[in-house]
Amino acid sequence: MFLHTSRLQFEAKPSAPDALFARKLQELIGGAWGEMTVTMQYLFQGWNCRVEGKYKDLIMDVATEEIGHVEMLATMCARLLEGAPSEMTADAVKDPAVAAVLGGMDVQQAIVSGGGPTLSDSNGVPWNGRYIVASGNLMADFRVNVAAEAQGRLQTARLYNMTDDPGVRDMLKFNLARDTAHQNMWLAAIEELQEDGLEGPISPSALFDEEHQEHAGTIWHNSDGVHGPEGRWASGPAPDGSHEFSYLMDVEPLGGKASAPPPDPMLYATSPANLGLIEKAIKKLAP
Amino acid sequence: MFLHTSRLQFEAKPSAPDALFARKLQELIGGAWGEMTVTMQYLFQGWNCRVEGKYKDLIMDVATEEIGHVEMLATMCARLLEGAPSEMTADAVKDPAVAAVLGGMDVQQAIVSGGGPTLSDSNGVPWNGRYIVASGNLMADFRVNVAAEAQGRLQTARLYNMTDDPGVRDMLKFNLARDTAHQNMWLAAIEELQEDGLEGPISPSALFDEEHQEHAGTIWHNSDGVHGPEGRWASGPAPDGSHEFSYLMDVEPLGGKASAPPPDPMLYATSPANLGLIEKAIKKLAP
Amino acid sequence: MFLHTSRLQFEAKPSAPDALFARKLQELIGGAWGEMTVTMQYLFQGWNCRVEGKYKDLIMDVATEEIGHVEMLATMCARLLEGAPSEMTADAVKDPAVAAVLGGMDVQQAIVSGGGPTLSDSNGVPWNGRYIVASGNLMADFRVNVAAEAQGRLQTARLYNMTDDPGVRDMLKFNLARDTAHQNMWLAAIEELQEDGLEGPISPSALFDEEHQEHAGTIWHNSDGVHGPEGRWASGPAPDGSHEFSYLMDVEPLGGKASAPPPDPMLYATSPANLGLIEKAIKKLAP
Amino acid sequence: MFLHTSRLQFEAKPSAPDALFARKLQELIGGAWGEMTVTMQYLFQGWNCRVEGKYKDLIMDVATEEIGHVEMLATMCARLLEGAPSEMTADAVKDPAVAAVLGGMDVQQAIVSGGGPTLSDSNGVPWNGRYIVASGNLMADFRVNVAAEAQGRLQTARLYNMTDDPGVRDMLKFNLARDTAHQNMWLAAIEELQEDGLEGPISPSALFDEEHQEHAGTIWHNSDGVHGPEGRWASGPAPDGSHEFSYLMDVEPLGGKASAPPPDPMLYATSPANLGLIEKAIKKLAP
Amino acid sequence: MFLHTSRLQFEAKPSAPDALFARKLQELIGGAWGEMTVTMQYLFQGWNCRVEGKYKDLIMDVATEEIGHVEMLATMCARLLEGAPSEMTADAVKDPAVAAVLGGMDVQQAIVSGGGPTLSDSNGVPWNGRYIVASGNLMADFRVNVAAEAQGRLQTARLYNMTDDPGVRDMLKFNLARDTAHQNMWLAAIEELQEDGLEGPISPSALFDEEHQEHAGTIWHNSDGVHGPEGRWASGPAPDGSHEFSYLMDVEPLGGKASAPPPDPMLYATSPANLGLIEKAIKKLAP
Amino acid sequence: MFLHTSRLQFEAKPSAPDALFARKLQELIGGAWGEMTVTMQYLFQGWNCRVEGKYKDLIMDVATEEIGHVEMLATMCARLLEGAPSEMTADAVKDPAVAAVLGGMDVQQAIVSGGGPTLSDSNGVPWNGRYIVASGNLMADFRVNVAAEAQGRLQTARLYNMTDDPGVRDMLKFNLARDTAHQNMWLAAIEELQEDGLEGPISPSALFDEEHQEHAGTIWHNSDGVHGPEGRWASGPAPDGSHEFSYLMDVEPLGGKASAPPPDPMLYATSPANLGLIEKAIKKLAP
Repeated sequence: MFLHTSRLQFEAKPSAPDALFARKLQELIGGAWGEMTVTMQYLFQGWNCRVEGKYKDLIMDVATEEIGHVEMLATMCARLLEGAPSEMTADAVKDPAVAAVLGGMDVQQAIVSGGGPTLSDSNGVPWNGRYIVASGNLMADFRVNVAAEAQGRLQTARLYNMTDDPGVRDMLKFNLARDTAHQNMWLAAIEELQEDGLEGPISPSALFDEEHQEHAGTIWHNSDGVHGPEGRWASGPAPDGSHEFSYLMDVEPLGGKASAPPPDPMLYATSPANLGLIEKAIKKLAP
Repeated sequence: MFLHTSRLQFEAKPSAPDALFARKLQELIGGAWGEMTVTMQYLFQGWNCRVEGKYKDLIMDVATEEIGHVEMLATMCARLLEGAPSEMTADAVKDPAVAAVLGGMDVQQAIVSGGGPTLSDSNGVPWNGRYIVASGNLMADFRVNVAAEAQGRLQTARLYNMTDDPGVRDMLKFNLARDTAHQNMWLAAIEELQEDGLEGPISPSALFDEEHQEHAGTIWHNSDGVHGPEGRWASGPAPDGSHEFSYLMDVEPLGGKASAPPPDPMLYATSPANLGLIEKAIKKLAP
Repeated sequence: MFLHTSRLQFEAKPSAPDALFARKLQELIGGAWGEMTVTMQYLFQGWNCRVEGKYKDLIMDVATEEIGHVEMLATMCARLLEGAPSEMTADAVKDPAVAAVLGGMDVQQAIVSGGGPTLSDSNGVPWNGRYIVASGNLMADFRVNVAAEAQGRLQTARLYNMTDDPGVRDMLKFNLARDTAHQNMWLAAIEELQEDGLEGPISPSALFDEEHQEHAGTIWHNSDGVHGPEGRWASGPAPDGSHEFSYLMDVEPLGGKASAPPPDPMLYATSPANLGLIEKAIKKLAP
Repeated sequence: MFLHTSRLQFEAKPSAPDALFARKLQELIGGAWGEMTVTMQYLFQGWNCRVEGKYKDLIMDVATEEIGHVEMLATMCARLLEGAPSEMTADAVKDPAVAAVLGGMDVQQAIVSGGGPTLSDSNGVPWNGRYIVASGNLMADFRVNVAAEAQGRLQTARLYNMTDDPGVRDMLKFNLARDTAHQNMWLAAIEELQEDGLEGPISPSALFDEEHQEHAGTIWHNSDGVHGPEGRWASGPAPDGSHEFSYLMDVEPLGGKASAPPPDPMLYATSPANLGLIEKAIKKLAP
Repeated sequence: MFLHTSRLQFEAKPSAPDALFARKLQELIGGAWGEMTVTMQYLFQGWNCRVEGKYKDLIMDVATEEIGHVEMLATMCARLLEGAPSEMTADAVKDPAVAAVLGGMDVQQAIVSGGGPTLSDSNGVPWNGRYIVASGNLMADFRVNVAAEAQGRLQTARLYNMTDDPGVRDMLKFNLARDTAHQNMWLAAIEELQEDGLEGPISPSALFDEEHQEHAGTIWHNSDGVHGPEGRWASGPAPDGSHEFSYLMDVEPLGGKASAPPPDPMLYATSPANLGLIEKAIKKLAP
Repeated sequence: MFLHTSRLQFEAKPSAPDALFARKLQELIGGAWGEMTVTMQYLFQGWNCRVEGKYKDLIMDVATEEIGHVEMLATMCARLLEGAPSEMTADAVKDPAVAAVLGGMDVQQAIVSGGGPTLSDSNGVPWNGRYIVASGNLMADFRVNVAAEAQGRLQTARLYNMTDDPGVRDMLKFNLARDTAHQNMWLAAIEELQEDGLEGPISPSALFDEEHQEHAGTIWHNSDGVHGPEGRWASGPAPDGSHEFSYLMDVEPLGGKASAPPPDPMLYATSPANLGLIEKAIKKLAP
């Protein structure tokens, strides 16, 4: 069960309204790598966690914090929209400054939300539930979590350069710091999962015996760039210690010809079996 | 530019048709973590790569291989559907074996594709372009790539247990091995990025000075599980060496009250300014 | 900012696993009218509320409760999936009881989530941000809220009849009660908004003067059913007291012919201006 | 079966083209609360209506009218786009007036539709079938209908202030009036459903006996705003007359700990059962 | 403006309920090539048509007919669902016949629609506005129309074989006939557009002079199948009479190396410019 | 299996960056009729093709070429974005030239992709797998292919007029030519399918006997435009030679009244059976 205080985790007050930035901020609210994604991703991972104890408790701590991040951003967005032009007549757009705002702002923030955020990204595409993952395998999921915090911090950093409003920057500095903390935290949790012997570096830690071993250490050279074999992935031991890497320069298909089976007549795929039948069918109909 | 041979990278021949499994295989074709995702993700990362040389060449090698994985799976899917029931009359479903197939198969594979795969996941939801990421920051993207290969291998492993067809298993053993190779490869590439001094462990490697340092090492205790502080993320140095971790047990909001600014009258949000006006408006209309 | 306790708002323990019902329950988690929708709808309405005081505080109370409803359902779903068949080989489906489960269960709950819920509806379609509304106008939004609680209670009632598991029914009885409480609550809030003089019955309470009055009280008879004029909407005062209803039996279009303006030649729409040009264009190319 | 006249229900002639407004108008065509939504919502409600007579006939009258509203808006949109800049070269955008139009217009109206509307909202997101509801329960559906007309009128009112073109305003005055008429009409139909004894105020009018009565009248205080209990929802009889309201100030979870059942080994969730196995698995592979 | 009669264009009465078929029929209602698509596609083409006269009038005749097809299918779907099992308890599914129905039916038709159709396809994915096209160029659009009628008739034919209910088959025979009529009709309209000199066979009939002529008649041999050059597209005049076909067997890229420009430092893409900076950044932070 | 060369099929070098055009180009990358669509459409058609030989080989040749088109456009897009404003502060937008760019550019190309394309259309909506069709019936699919090349060439032609950059135009001239070649090619393939006797002009070439012949040649006059019967579709033989066309001027519904069956009580649809019950239910609850 959840509880709420109406105070924000961190301050979210712009020095001045900025409708253009309010649109861009939507990416951090409802984008594929925005705060809504990490919120729901961590909640579902926590609820789906099969190991009671420190991992589950950590996930729920962070998940609950993230709901408050959506709150901060939604509040900031509404404040940035204060006084955004709502009377956008043809006359108004003759002023280049107004025109710039009109061109760049998210019109749904006015028409649909009445001066607040939507649950969409910076192009107005709604957030959706396929952005999140909660597979039950902590190693596989923590790898997504590091990735999500990395993409999230990257987008926050880009947005940081797109404003010079001290209030907005102050909040973004907090967000940047939390994304740093959470990246480090998930990296530490990945290490700990291995130290605890709960997961290995490769997910899932199973079926290694059954997979075709001869294809588990090679990199195939399917493109003509010549520098691929210069990296540490081209020779030497793989990070999980299980194989020696090699770079397969002369790639050859191992399988036979790609072909689809003969068609079911009831599905009317084109087939040699049609020969003669079609002419007859049409003739029969002709008056 | 691309070239194609009609031979498959690996064999994809089921020992017998299995329409139920053909539906499940859709997850590896058009699911959020399926082969279509890694194909397009690596292609766009390669085209968007700003560093010529080993990283770009590696990405394009793997990207091109992945198109062939979609091909293998699409071919396998069509072959699994050979002889799937296309005449599903009320009589037919009285046979429990047929009924099971009818209930569990993907009806669009018959109605829409005529006995072949669609570009959808195992629930029939179409693949979409928001599944991929190509941010231009190699560290942030390689972290997604490891995660994608981990989720992909996990799903392949689950599917492996859902069939006992030797032909299908043979192909999945190849897929499992490639996912192992690619997980190791991206992990090696992450190491190399740091050894080359191109990226640090935290993405992006910038703005550390400006972020609020005091919030970059703490984990907030927003849920009531007591075991969170038992992990390696609760104290000691963070993986990037920049901070000491600490676990903030008594969390307090740092910001003020969440509030939205006063409404623009032209947007008709509910507001104290409405008082009296509405009664008047309605009265004026009354006959 | 939010806090969390790991205890559920209400118990969510099935008496026995039921993978078929776990799929159906997805409708209440990630369906258009599920708990995720009311959670996010109320949160965004609260954050976007322009009147401090009882309305905003009520919205945030209910919003925070609803996150806990998603939690109850997600937990119930995982428990219903315990022991769901994960080895769905061709042999297994020869048993009609297993076949029934396989046919009717959500395969992504196994392949993607590893035995837990996804953020999707009962057909596997992901939840998305366009399901919610937070317009800033409390009357318009509370009307959606009543509707959402009504649709939600209706779906819960339907699901109640689709199980006879006492544990599942116990939780659904709690959900039914909360949906009753919340329907009544939003109905009361709609009354109070009018008593407080903040909103009238019709949203928004503005522009009544400017709308074409002669069309604000008529129902147009565009279909040939003869019973439409028998209702209370066909004569007498309208609920907001502003107009007399009337039923317009002989409908006539009031506007001119629908037509699109002449095409811009640079957009290559088909146009009489093409006459002669095309023949010439093709001739010029012919060898 | 449907018939059509090429005359519009109401006039739809702008005084001058305005590509910026043509984009905003898309919200009323293909937005979540636009005319397409009410058209399809009412059609499916009518076709799905289980009570022959006045309700069904009313729904079909209104549904058929609404198709004509989509037609008016589509025609207006095409006319607003007449002469919109189709040669948007880098030179052209140096003129701020042209630049404003280019920035704010919907580029797909040019590239995809050749100067006409798309079936999308004002951010270009396509309309979809999840926007509509037709549950078969008239009370639950009429509540959505009132909400839809309220949101629709609210958006129309906002758009009314975003133009000063007399022709566009003339059409919007008609739309405002129809939305008033339809809001009143659905409110009247809700009253009539109760007077006819077909539905009660709470949907569905069933299972009241079985729901947990003690939770059907309380509002839970999960957030820290203090003004929630000041409203009419905090005490006194609920609108449906069935319960006394009360405000539960000291909320306590009623359920046990949220937990997921032990993992199925075939699904490779992280589990204490992994201990020791993973180290062994990796060791076996090491050369 | 539209009018409606409550009589169906053709009869839609099944001889017996069949919940399995009711799900499959959704493909013809809300699938990408279903009746909803042609309805909205033709309506938007008609409204967007820039040539008054026979083409526009034809489009509107057919568009209006198609709304009635959605109506027939929606009605048929509701009737097929009569008596579908709504009490799907664990006991019930022990009966293989019931189990088959439960596995194969669309659960949302019960939970969401209360025994009627949704606006979705046979996998439950909602219909959306990107399925339609109305470009303003009649030749380009009529080609889509022929294709839509062909795909629609193909799916209808497949569904025809999936039922032996005489009532359902009777309606499908009408649908098959209309799809034949409409395919022929659009083929005739394509001929007429050319005879009238309004459009040529290739869309749009413009810019032929400016396109690179040397690439307008060749087929590139990018795959290794050897039979490509055996078709009539490999030599001889192209259908539009403008070019001689040729098959380019030794394909060579004509462009330079694919490369992305140097990164903007404010976007934090990985770049050689990072060298040295990152190590310094991290060092500075270390305690 | 696929191979790749890093050289582009054709050159893709703009003379100067143009962030506005980079957004528009997204339509050709990830739009419904963009290069991604034809790439995946042809690949799935090829893999699903049931006739070995010239048709399948042709499809795979073209499919493989199209992947290279996505590559050209993605590369062009990244190059057009070079130097696009990434510091979009409130000050910057005071310059009308910058403001124009900011208003019209795709903000996700900066925030999400770091100066490269996304897999979305020009309004930022992600590409999805429902855009493609591969039905197994070559005639039905080739008709979609002609349509796709026609819509694609139409959009390319429109974009050609929206730039005067010689480098961009040079690439578009190549694209225009390829679209011409491919339209002609698919038209030729449609002819050949008929000459080979594999398919007739109407898809599928089956069930003509069973469809209701009397409805296979008529055009219904459901709208009031008077010019419909002036076309070649109103009389004379249909293109497939099977019927005489006729225009049915006085249309009459052939079916009975549209009605839904009586409701299942467990689904709580509104029904006459509710009469009396609801009042009783509510009374029982009242204190």
